[in-house]
Amino acid sequence: MVNETQHSCSASSSSRSDGGSSSGSESSKDNSRCSTPVLDADRHERLREKMRRRQEAGDKWFSLEFFPPRTANAAVNLISRFDHMGAGGPLFVDVTWHPAGDPGSDKETSSMIIAYTAVNYCGLETILHMTCCNQTKDDITGHLQKAKRLGLKNIMALRGDPSGEEWEEEVHGFNYAVDLVKHIRNEFDDYFDICVAGYPKGHPEAESYEADLRHLKEKVYAGADFIITQLFFRPETFLKFMKDCQAIGITCPIIPGIFPIQGYHSLRQLVKLSKLEVPQEIKDVIEPIKDNDAAIRNYGVELAVSMCRELLDSGMVHGLHFYTLNREVATTEVLKRLGIWNEDPRRPLPWAVSAHPKRRVEDVRPIFWASRPKSYIYRTQEWDDFPNGRWGNSSSPAFGELKDYYLFYLKSKSPREELLKMWGEELTSEESVFEVFTCYITGEPNKNGYKVTCMPWNDDPLATETNLLKEQLEKVNRRGILTINSQPNINGKPSTDPIVGWGPSGGYVFQKAYLEFFTSSEIVRALLKVLKKYELRVNYHIVNVKGENITNAPDLQPNAVTWGIFPGREIIQPTVVDPVSFLSWKDEAFALWIEQWAKLYEEESPSRMIIQYIHDNYYLVNLVDNDFPLENCLWQVVEDTFELLN
Amino acid sequence: MVNETQHSCSASSSSRSDGGSSSGSESSKDNSRCSTPVLDADRHERLREKMRRRQEAGDKWFSLEFFPPRTANAAVNLISRFDHMGAGGPLFVDVTWHPAGDPGSDKETSSMIIAYTAVNYCGLETILHMTCCNQTKDDITGHLQKAKRLGLKNIMALRGDPSGEEWEEEVHGFNYAVDLVKHIRNEFDDYFDICVAGYPKGHPEAESYEADLRHLKEKVYAGADFIITQLFFRPETFLKFMKDCQAIGITCPIIPGIFPIQGYHSLRQLVKLSKLEVPQEIKDVIEPIKDNDAAIRNYGVELAVSMCRELLDSGMVHGLHFYTLNREVATTEVLKRLGIWNEDPRRPLPWAVSAHPKRRVEDVRPIFWASRPKSYIYRTQEWDDFPNGRWGNSSSPAFGELKDYYLFYLKSKSPREELLKMWGEELTSEESVFEVFTCYITGEPNKNGYKVTCMPWNDDPLATETNLLKEQLEKVNRRGILTINSQPNINGKPSTDPIVGWGPSGGYVFQKAYLEFFTSSEIVRALLKVLKKYELRVNYHIVNVKGENITNAPDLQPNAVTWGIFPGREIIQPTVVDPVSFLSWKDEAFALWIEQWAKLYEEESPSRMIIQYIHDNYYLVNLVDNDFPLENCLWQVVEDTFELLN
Repeated sequence: MVNETQHSCSASSSSRSDGGSSSGSESSKDNSRCSTPVLDADRHERLREKMRRRQEAGDKWFSLEFFPPRTANAAVNLISRFDHMGAGGPLFVDVTWHPAGDPGSDKETSSMIIAYTAVNYCGLETILHMTCCNQTKDDITGHLQKAKRLGLKNIMALRGDPSGEEWEEEVHGFNYAVDLVKHIRNEFDDYFDICVAGYPKGHPEAESYEADLRHLKEKVYAGADFIITQLFFRPETFLKFMKDCQAIGITCPIIPGIFPIQGYHSLRQLVKLSKLEVPQEIKDVIEPIKDNDAAIRNYGVELAVSMCRELLDSGMVHGLHFYTLNREVATTEVLKRLGIWNEDPRRPLPWAVSAHPKRRVEDVRPIFWASRPKSYIYRTQEWDDFPNGRWGNSSSPAFGELKDYYLFYLKSKSPREELLKMWGEELTSEESVFEVFTCYITGEPNKNGYKVTCMPWNDDPLATETNLLKEQLEKVNRRGILTINSQPNINGKPSTDPIVGWGPSGGYVFQKAYLEFFTSSEIVRALLKVLKKYELRVNYHIVNVKGENITNAPDLQPNAVTWGIFPGREIIQPTVVDPVSFLSWKDEAFALWIEQWAKLYEEESPSRMIIQYIHDNYYLVNLVDNDFPLENCLWQVVEDTFELLN
Repeated sequence: MVNETQHSCSASSSSRSDGGSSSGSESSKDNSRCSTPVLDADRHERLREKMRRRQEAGDKWFSLEFFPPRTANAAVNLISRFDHMGAGGPLFVDVTWHPAGDPGSDKETSSMIIAYTAVNYCGLETILHMTCCNQTKDDITGHLQKAKRLGLKNIMALRGDPSGEEWEEEVHGFNYAVDLVKHIRNEFDDYFDICVAGYPKGHPEAESYEADLRHLKEKVYAGADFIITQLFFRPETFLKFMKDCQAIGITCPIIPGIFPIQGYHSLRQLVKLSKLEVPQEIKDVIEPIKDNDAAIRNYGVELAVSMCRELLDSGMVHGLHFYTLNREVATTEVLKRLGIWNEDPRRPLPWAVSAHPKRRVEDVRPIFWASRPKSYIYRTQEWDDFPNGRWGNSSSPAFGELKDYYLFYLKSKSPREELLKMWGEELTSEESVFEVFTCYITGEPNKNGYKVTCMPWNDDPLATETNLLKEQLEKVNRRGILTINSQPNINGKPSTDPIVGWGPSGGYVFQKAYLEFFTSSEIVRALLKVLKKYELRVNYHIVNVKGENITNAPDLQPNAVTWGIFPGREIIQPTVVDPVSFLSWKDEAFALWIEQWAKLYEEESPSRMIIQYIHDNYYLVNLVDNDFPLENCLWQVVEDTFELLN
């Protein structure tokens, strides 16, 4: 959204304006300009500001709660879920704190790391839960420091469930959530946005509903920014609670926690844990269908939709918080039926933006990692500055190495057996590799009847945009131009275009045609001859695994291949073909042949040797057609190359 | 020119390349990338490198010598001459050192300041002459330090003419040019490029021609980078000299000094000073026509052209140095006839680039100073950094004040009487001011028969590009929309377009339509109502002299209004409409009403009061139409405004 408000500000002090003649200076905005052109004001606001802005705009929002998974595989799946559900436009996600699961550790399943991943790799505003009972002040400070270091900006401050049978208050310890709120404000000032829990029926351990409200007020007065409530079953429960809160002076946002019933057992477990009573009218419906999961879920969706509608219609509720239980279907359906699921997410940039505060100015990346954005984020996580506006010097920091941790997040999500079905149980020649690439492009099943839905360089099926090039891509892959990245040229499409659009509305987006592929040295020799004809039009970069490297990039400068022109802004150029970082990408691209493909086969097996041969002998080529207003000439370049070979 | 050389460089060290497997690293270019995208490699090279590159490319060049003028008015004219002759593409200009004229001072006529102006304001590579005899080491070091501080990078090291009848060597003093060369290299290392003088006939005071050659060799071996010769009359004189130099081991470039004879007296004076003999065959032609200036000049041009042709044809000469005597016609004609005058200067950017080393990365400016680039350079001379790539934060340094010195360079070049003829001896109403603006636009004479060739905001006649808008501009100026700056929208014209093109060939240039004008508060009120209809399309900024300020610029961000897309480069956006610096420009734009126009009239005179009224009550408005691919809507905005008023 273009944010076009009318500013009326006083002049900056001028050498010529005599004495008192300049008019009132009621709202000088001279210093309020962001240091970088911002496409998305959101990226620079903290959560409580976003909440306020959405409320002021009358814009309803939702948020999603997840818990950390138990296994690494489940973590990989949860991250995919973050990506899917993130597309619907939650204002934030939150990740619960599991004291039993070493929540502050570096384990890939810890609360801390899952929340960090959501922020950093999935670009989601994230709240990390944190409980304080049975923990030392130092432990807690350590967790908070780590959260800050990892770019987390929001904490849900909770007491947690005391361990042991009988809970005793510790002197000078953290006995209540309010102690944690105070501690965060004492030690970290205003750095974190703090959320606290509200209990629409009163906390089960509280002396009374009224006493619990007073505790809540204490938490807010100690520095909490907003409240998320425990689940409840009737809208009037929440609305009464909200009015009672306001009556005693709680003015911060209070967000109802919504639990779409998804199954009989999960409901029973949850009410047991939260010590809630399921109302009789719900029990009456559920008991008879308790073995019919689909029926219960349908009922749960209906119930949640009708409750949410009532809450939103009350005018008192601006956002809804969903307890997802890490599941996608029920919550998504409720949100879609409420009309607050974002069906057409506008991309602020052509690539997924990280929400890590360190990266908030980042607005240009090399195109090479277009299908592997998490790998790019991982490999650049140690950078102090991120390229902003221009690629330029900022590319000098080295790219991090490919490590195991990285491979955990980026390893193909499919198990070995499935990959073998897709990529071939047995390869007999280089041509059988061409066939795999071709099937990935066409979406047709391979000769064993399996569809190729991912490749070592592409975890996901072909992008919609790439579909525009499908026919041509199929043709060249069949002949051994093994494409791994491409984009069509675009000459000024509206920024709202559903396929190639990005950025605020009212703008125009542009692209230079790009093609990146592996191919044999024989084809490269012919290609180089053909490229002489296109010397002024096509920039190329050709490199093999040994680093033999041929380019016509002037002074090794980056070539902007995607850019956008927007109302009232400087130009944004979010992707470049950078000849210097191409050499880092080259290492990764060649390594994927071995790590993800060759290693599926036995050592010394013919299949493995074929992949190894390609890895050792093929070249990685990128081509840019600079004449974006004309018809893409790269297909002709390839055509000419094959003609020369014949 | 796009510099597309084929680099073949080794890979950067990779975490994956095992041990010794990576191939030879004969020419790693990884670190050779410029820190900023360079449109014009020239800007980053020192003079001797430019010379070498031109020679290697077989590209003939020329340079121009000027002397510092005696009066401030003559200095203003010389600077215009720099601009005119600079358009022809000299490799450099040089400014002689006049010991009698306080050459190192801050006077506007000093050698130092004229050379600084050529570099900084006219964007010319410049050599400052410097003589050393009769000066202390400290004086000389002081001059050199000042030259360095002012951004001068090249010194012509000369002995100079000793004062007094008999010259005696001073012990430890600077007796010869070679002493100055050594001193520069000792004190300033390799900072300066050093030029020395060569005498094709031998220096008049040298013991012999051979002895003089040895002196020259000493100067070169002491650190001079190239040689410019004294004038001579026959090409064979120079060619023999050059061969003799080479024979004794002088290998640096030797540039022949060409003196097109422009008049009888100037020739006599020059030969007397330089103690040269005019050959008999020239005397024989000149003597009979000595009172016919035109005939002598024609002869001089013929003679120079034929001599230069012979020199260039010899294959030994790559550049020609012209003694212009501060005159334009003869030298320009010789250069045009030789075909080395650049008839179609390619603009590296839409605005004139400064050659000051501090500004070499500068590639974005606010559009407001488009017709007053020297004012912009002056007012930003104290900046430490120049915006590069984006306007962003770099605009925070304050703009310098308008001072007398500035007014000297920027005051209208026309005398008061002429300005009165153009702008009206007597103004009777605001409409008579509208009439002046209209005449400036149309080029038609005003009612007294005078053409309006400049305005307080525009020293020069209308730009070719503005001519594209002439008809519309005329219409609105007649009605009191007093335009001072505008550009049409451009949707992807070739960068070689003769009117709107800039930057290297093979690119595409774009513009958003821009209109800037003064107008009455009545019109502004209607305009603001009309602009509501165009809210998402048109960015506006409206301000009066008191600083009352209305804008819809989002977050006061700059709006890129000129940009170019080039092969193998990042995007260049050289002009922006920046709402923050607009307030500095506003002060200057309003002040020009008073300083340049009102003050032509007596105090209290009706004419002066009319200008004062406009200054006090009108608004300065800028409008940008963001939809550059569509037809410019700004004329419709103005049309709608007048409709609303009627």
